[in-house]
Amino acid sequence: MRIATITHQGQHRVGRLSADGLTIDLFDIDASRGALALIEQSVAGTALPAVTETLAFAPAMLVAPLPAPRRNLWCVGRNYHAHAAELQASVFKDNTKTVDAWPIVFTKVPETVIGPNDAVQLPGAAISSQIDYEAELTIVIGKGGRNISRADAMSHVYGYTIVNDVTARDVQIRHAQWDLGKSFDTFCPMGPWIVTADELNAGDTRVRCWVTPNGGAAELRQDARTTDLIFDLPTLIETCSRGITLLPGDVIATGSPAGVGMGMTPPRWLGHGDVVRIEVDGLGVLETRFEETGE
Amino acid sequence: MRIATITHQGQHRVGRLSADGLTIDLFDIDASRGALALIEQSVAGTALPAVTETLAFAPAMLVAPLPAPRRNLWCVGRNYHAHAAELQASVFKDNTKTVDAWPIVFTKVPETVIGPNDAVQLPGAAISSQIDYEAELTIVIGKGGRNISRADAMSHVYGYTIVNDVTARDVQIRHAQWDLGKSFDTFCPMGPWIVTADELNAGDTRVRCWVTPNGGAAELRQDARTTDLIFDLPTLIETCSRGITLLPGDVIATGSPAGVGMGMTPPRWLGHGDVVRIEVDGLGVLETRFEETGE
Repeated sequence: MRIATITHQGQHRVGRLSADGLTIDLFDIDASRGALALIEQSVAGTALPAVTETLAFAPAMLVAPLPAPRRNLWCVGRNYHAHAAELQASVFKDNTKTVDAWPIVFTKVPETVIGPNDAVQLPGAAISSQIDYEAELTIVIGKGGRNISRADAMSHVYGYTIVNDVTARDVQIRHAQWDLGKSFDTFCPMGPWIVTADELNAGDTRVRCWVTPNGGAAELRQDARTTDLIFDLPTLIETCSRGITLLPGDVIATGSPAGVGMGMTPPRWLGHGDVVRIEVDGLGVLETRFEETGE
Repeated sequence: MRIATITHQGQHRVGRLSADGLTIDLFDIDASRGALALIEQSVAGTALPAVTETLAFAPAMLVAPLPAPRRNLWCVGRNYHAHAAELQASVFKDNTKTVDAWPIVFTKVPETVIGPNDAVQLPGAAISSQIDYEAELTIVIGKGGRNISRADAMSHVYGYTIVNDVTARDVQIRHAQWDLGKSFDTFCPMGPWIVTADELNAGDTRVRCWVTPNGGAAELRQDARTTDLIFDLPTLIETCSRGITLLPGDVIATGSPAGVGMGMTPPRWLGHGDVVRIEVDGLGVLETRFEETGE
């Protein structure tokens, strides 16, 4: 299933897209936090809620599938070998040289989340002038748990979505811990929907990212398969649940492939009017415009 | 005022302690998230809610003043000069040697929070065998805001509480980013209450921490004044709000003085039956027992 959160008659609703993507069945369930209540109900073993109406679907209806996560999003750093190499002298210069020692995990505040029809607001040069993209396949946790083993991990996955882990590189680096530089308002485009775990072989799919500079032509910047992950999805779930109870609706962004703006020579930062398009095969497309706020 | 969250007749209630501490006036306000609704109402400029009843107060009633924060707690690392020195070869070995360059800010998940009458559950040696305490004066944000200047910062403080930023040192260090090693279940004792900003000169008070090993005598381990902070409270608020909208009820733990277990030779970790007592002058005492869960 593709589970989408939309705006309909001024309210959030959650529903299931048809196979051809032309219609959406809206569920009779609280959608104030997007798909969260649906995920909780699914974990409880309840059947899908009743469908109250079926609408013609248009992408303009979409909001983030989880527009209001209950706590910070988990994010994984340095999880593709080629990306580890491209930032070895900058973002990762203080990290151990053994890239496969342990996953690097940080967070983004829930209020960073925006949807497929929202724009990232650039913070102004006085706050940061090094804004970068990171295309990421993202796990949505279903059944919660603590000390989950690798062997059991995939049974805790509700589905997958896409996150653009937008980053202020100067802020990320200067504070040593990354949460601030990852948590600027609007810095987490999420969508376009959740594909349930049964429909995507997330351990072997393709992640691509194009940047279209304001008025220019689209450039393919990131292109990798998730078979190249340093730490696979079961390992990430095991890691995040060691001593920590994972909750239904928790989000784990699995890290970004090589090809970020900071890795280029010279680095290329995002500016007003740029558009970042992320596609994950079997999942969908998330396209986001970056705008200056004039602050 | 001292604003406390208590359990009364099976429900959370929030109220104001009397000056002598013998009684508590319970407010007519939603306390499902402790003092959060009261703080939001205060920010909106509304008068204090009506008092529905006055009870004899006993410390056994207390729960955490903010038992369910809306997002991860902000925490500051390496913010006392002496503490920066004691962990320079371990926790801080990869950080810049210029300790006053920029604050180090990380997070703890909201579900770490426990109250003054709860115990920290040790996670078991297979998960971590290096459990440490960190006594911290903690800011509770009132009025929210983004890009708050140092000059305006103190007008955004609702009050202060105490946090024990309990840490699994081995996990903190091996993942490079600290959020995992700081976010184990029950790893954030908070309390005993919130003292409103008008009643505490938080920039010049004393933070002490005693550890009583199981069956032993209390040992004073941490003892510092907040005048020794590397980054003062206005700077921390400015830092956390750069590009990020702070929200009413946000928590900023301001960092721990020298004297943590990891800084001793050899290091001394917390074990079953140990009790950690934190006192901040003008604020109160937070005492927590550490227990093995037998996992």
